[in-house]
Amino acid sequence: MKTQLEKDLFYMSKAIELAKRAALIGEVPVGAVLVVNDKILARGWNLRESKQNPIMHAEIVAILKASKKLASWRIPSSTLYVTLEPCLMCAGAIYQARINRVVFGALDSKAGACGSLYSIHNDSRLNHRFEVLGKIMAHESTSLMKSFFKSRRSK
Amino acid sequence: MKTQLEKDLFYMSKAIELAKRAALIGEVPVGAVLVVNDKILARGWNLRESKQNPIMHAEIVAILKASKKLASWRIPSSTLYVTLEPCLMCAGAIYQARINRVVFGALDSKAGACGSLYSIHNDSRLNHRFEVLGKIMAHESTSLMKSFFKSRRSK
Repeated sequence: MKTQLEKDLFYMSKAIELAKRAALIGEVPVGAVLVVNDKILARGWNLRESKQNPIMHAEIVAILKASKKLASWRIPSSTLYVTLEPCLMCAGAIYQARINRVVFGALDSKAGACGSLYSIHNDSRLNHRFEVLGKIMAHESTSLMKSFFKSRRSK
Repeated sequence: MKTQLEKDLFYMSKAIELAKRAALIGEVPVGAVLVVNDKILARGWNLRESKQNPIMHAEIVAILKASKKLASWRIPSSTLYVTLEPCLMCAGAIYQARINRVVFGALDSKAGACGSLYSIHNDSRLNHRFEVLGKIMAHESTSLMKSFFKSRRSK
């Protein structure tokens, strides 16, 4: 029987694999997996540049796939694992989809909405709140981002 | 030559027409038009229930269409007209798409992110800000919402 932390590390490592896929196609490396009942329901990675679509962050890609699979706009009893702290749009989408729990990797001090700039997850004025656990395998996520931006600058 | 206010009223009336379409299909009546160079580039109305998709608010539908038309994740020099104050997800998407200006109808005291609960549009910590003009034809938008919820309660 795995502990919750072991599970969180396992699914975060899956999200990191997806972030690497994003990097391979020239996208800022962010990956996400959405887990329901200890199974991966949907995967996403950043596709903003490839699709030239402003909303195609890893989290939104995973949410769209999951909602299609469930044929429901609600994705209850789910945990979203994402390698970078969600931005406002993604935190808003997590709230809209009624996701219960978010585990993220690196903090985003410039745009993060789950603890850094904003704390959307525990705003008591909104009609849904979600649990957040941050800085899980943050070093791996940050390293990926750093090497991505470094290689882009040197081009 | 129309004044800016005349233009704003004209495009807001178009957004209200779309909100009515949403109501006709059982959706919370919110409509949006995205205008570039005094032309409507994209239209959207709330499709959350019809599509069972948590992100399909009117603003996102319009942003997705516009970005597809422009083949770009940036929608610069644009104004988004929407009958209800954008929520966090939509304000975040407006920010992501680098939209410059938002004109909205009714205030959303429970979830609005452009003046009510949050003021995402003028957060100097973010790397893009947008102008917001609220309460344009607010009475019409509010009436639509009120009759929608009234008719739903009576069912």
